[in-house]
Amino acid sequence: MNVVVAQSGGPTAVINASLLGVYRAARQWAEVDTVFGSLYGIEGVIKDNLVDLNALLPTQEEELCLRQTPAAALRSCRYKLPSVEKDPTVYEQICATLEKHDIGAFFYIGGNDSMDTVDKLSKYFASVGSPIRVMGVPKTIDNDLCLMDHTPGYGSAAKFVATCMWEMIRDCTVYDLDSVLIVEVMGRDTGWLTASAALPRLNGCDAPHLVYLPEVPFSADRFIEDVRERQKHHRTVIVAVSEGVELEGLDDFQSGKVDNFGHKYLSGVGKCLEELVRDRIGCKVRSVELNILQRCAAHIASETDLAEAESLGFVAVDAAKQGKTGMVSAIVSRNAGEYIPNYGIVPVCDVANQIKYVPREWINEAGNGVLPAALEYIRPLIQGEPVVATENGLARHFIIG
Amino acid sequence: MNVVVAQSGGPTAVINASLLGVYRAARQWAEVDTVFGSLYGIEGVIKDNLVDLNALLPTQEEELCLRQTPAAALRSCRYKLPSVEKDPTVYEQICATLEKHDIGAFFYIGGNDSMDTVDKLSKYFASVGSPIRVMGVPKTIDNDLCLMDHTPGYGSAAKFVATCMWEMIRDCTVYDLDSVLIVEVMGRDTGWLTASAALPRLNGCDAPHLVYLPEVPFSADRFIEDVRERQKHHRTVIVAVSEGVELEGLDDFQSGKVDNFGHKYLSGVGKCLEELVRDRIGCKVRSVELNILQRCAAHIASETDLAEAESLGFVAVDAAKQGKTGMVSAIVSRNAGEYIPNYGIVPVCDVANQIKYVPREWINEAGNGVLPAALEYIRPLIQGEPVVATENGLARHFIIG
Repeated sequence: MNVVVAQSGGPTAVINASLLGVYRAARQWAEVDTVFGSLYGIEGVIKDNLVDLNALLPTQEEELCLRQTPAAALRSCRYKLPSVEKDPTVYEQICATLEKHDIGAFFYIGGNDSMDTVDKLSKYFASVGSPIRVMGVPKTIDNDLCLMDHTPGYGSAAKFVATCMWEMIRDCTVYDLDSVLIVEVMGRDTGWLTASAALPRLNGCDAPHLVYLPEVPFSADRFIEDVRERQKHHRTVIVAVSEGVELEGLDDFQSGKVDNFGHKYLSGVGKCLEELVRDRIGCKVRSVELNILQRCAAHIASETDLAEAESLGFVAVDAAKQGKTGMVSAIVSRNAGEYIPNYGIVPVCDVANQIKYVPREWINEAGNGVLPAALEYIRPLIQGEPVVATENGLARHFIIG
Repeated sequence: MNVVVAQSGGPTAVINASLLGVYRAARQWAEVDTVFGSLYGIEGVIKDNLVDLNALLPTQEEELCLRQTPAAALRSCRYKLPSVEKDPTVYEQICATLEKHDIGAFFYIGGNDSMDTVDKLSKYFASVGSPIRVMGVPKTIDNDLCLMDHTPGYGSAAKFVATCMWEMIRDCTVYDLDSVLIVEVMGRDTGWLTASAALPRLNGCDAPHLVYLPEVPFSADRFIEDVRERQKHHRTVIVAVSEGVELEGLDDFQSGKVDNFGHKYLSGVGKCLEELVRDRIGCKVRSVELNILQRCAAHIASETDLAEAESLGFVAVDAAKQGKTGMVSAIVSRNAGEYIPNYGIVPVCDVANQIKYVPREWINEAGNGVLPAALEYIRPLIQGEPVVATENGLARHFIIG
C-alpha cells in the first residue's frame, strides 16, 4: 500500500514541516511502501501528477532542508472540489489515480477551503464503500480554524509581524516631528495576525497605539479621532490595521474582485488610511503593507510553530493508521500554566468553511486595541529559533524542479 | 576632555554598532572622561541636548543590547547645516555647546548629507583656530558613498532584500498559473540595493528574471516587452525594480515632493508597473514594496556588516586621537581572493554630496539584469548571523526614554 500527500491554499513558513511530519510518520507505517506527493494540491491527484517523495528525500539532509523551506514544496492550488452530484467525473478521475498507485490514505495540508475537499472526498469514499482514508492537516497564517487552540503557520507569521512592528517602531521614532505610521496586516476575516502586531507591548513598549481588527466595526471618522487623541501624547502614532476591516464609504480603495471561493481580494486599506491622515490631519504619514512576506518569512520562523506543524503531520498519519477518515489533526487545547500543546483529531466537517474569530473580550471596549489576554495567548507561539543551513548567506531551500 | 557622538539621516540595522564602536574606542582614549551622545543629530548640539553615554551603558549587557538595536538610538535629523556666511548664529550655538561640555572631538555617523555637516564644521573650526576635531563615520543602506568599497548598513539591507526575494520566489511559484511579481527596492539614485535582489541567482535560481537599476534608462514599453519575453519561459516572472528608476510618461505616480536636501520623495514605482502589467498583459500580478524594513530589519542583520560598522567607529576615534579632522573612516578596499576589508580614512569633502553609482559593466547590456561580478561583490557582505538576546520572543532593544 502507498499513501499520497498534497498541500493547498496560501503558503506558510511551516507548511513543509507538516509535509515532513506526514512523510516521516508514513515511512514508519509498516504497511506503506511509497509516500507520493501530489503536485498542485488535489489537482495533481485529478491529473495523476505525483512525485515519489522517498526518492526526493533520500537522507536527513534533504528532510531538514524541506523543513526550513517556506511555501508549499509540492506546489498548491485554489481548486474548489465540486459536489459529486454536480461533477462525478472529477471523483472518477481521483479514484483512478488513487487506484492506479494503490493509495490507502490521502493527506491534505491546508486551511478552511482545503478542509472542504477533505470533507467531500472522505464522504464520497464512505458512500462508495472505498477503504481509502482522507485526513486533513491544518495550516493557515490566519489562525481561523474552528475547534483548534491555534493553527500551524500562525506562530511564525505572528513572529514576523511582531518583529517587523518592533523594528519599525524604532525606525519611525528617530525624528523629532509629528508623524503617523500605519501597518497593514493580513487577515481576510479575522484579526488574529493583526493582534500579534501588539506583541511589543509585552516588552514595555506603548506602541502600537492603535490596533484595528475586523471583528469590530470600523469607521474612518472614528479612526481620525483616535489618531488625534493619541497625538496629544505621542509624536509618532503607530497603527496596526487588518486588511479585512470594513471601510464604510471608502470601498473604492478595494478592488472588489472575488476568487473561486467567493472571497474578496483585499488591498489598500493601509494606503487608504494614509491618504485620510494626509488629508484630514496633514502630518507626515506612511503606510506599510507587510504583504506576502507574512506567509513566507521562514527566516524568522518560530521553532515552536515548526515543531507543532511537524507533529500535526504525525498525528494525522497515526489517525489514518487507526482507520480514521474525515478528520483533521489539531492542537485542540493547551495546558493551563506553562505552555504545552495538546494534540488530537477533530471532525473535518466541523472545521471546513467555518471561521474562528478573535473573542470580543480580548479586544478593548473602544475597539481600537487588544487586551493582555490576547498577547498572553500569542506569546508562546512565537518562541524559539530554528537552526538553519545556509548557502551563500541564504537559507538552503528544497525545490522540486 | 570629553567627546560627543551623534547619528543622522535614515536608519540602518547597524548604525548603533558604529555608535558602540565610537563609544568603546573613546572609552579607551586616555584623555577622554565622558562620551556624550547628542540627541537628534547635530540639532542636539545646536540645542545643547546631550546625554551621558557612560551612564547609559554601564555594563557589557547594555552595550550588546545597543549593538543589536536597529535605527539611531540617539535619534536622527535631516537638518542641513547652512553655510557660515548665511547663518553664523548656528555655528555660535554649536561652539557654545561644545565649549560648555569641554568637547575635544565630534563624531557624526551618517550618509552623504551628514558628511556635508562634517565638512562644513571641520572647515569652520579650522578657520577660527579651534582645536576641535570633527570626524565622519559612514552609514547608508544605499551604499552610494564615494571612495569606499562599501558602506555599513548596506550588507544587512542587502541580506534582508535577498532573503525576502528568495522566500517570495518560493511563495509566488506555488500556483499553476501565469503571474508576475514586482518587488520595489529602495535606492534614491543608485541600484546597489536592488542589485542584491539578484543574489538568489548565486544559489542556482533563475529568478529574479528582470532587475532594473536607476543607472540605466527605463522605459515602460521596454519593460512590458521584457516581461512578455520572459513569460515564454517562466509561468511566474519575477522582477526587482529600484524605486529610483525614471518612469517616462508615468510621472503622476510619483508625488514630486522634495525634502530639505532637494531629493524627490519616491513611491509607487512597483504599484505603477503592477497596473501597467494588468492593463497591457492582463495576467495575475502583484507588487511588493519592501519599504522601511529594508533599513531596520536587524533580525536578519549581517554579522559581517555589524562588525565592520563597529570597527569604523574605532577607526574614526583613532584618527581623531591622532589629530585628524575633516575626514571620514572608510572601508577603502578589499583584498583580492578571500574577503578581507581594508580600513582607512578619506577626506570628507570628497565624500559629501557625491554619489557612487553601480558600474555600468556590472549591469547586462540590455539594462534589465545584473552580472555575476555584482553578485560576487555583494556576497561576502551578507555573511554571518549575530547572536541576539531576546525577551518574549523579540530581540532586546536599547531605548533612550
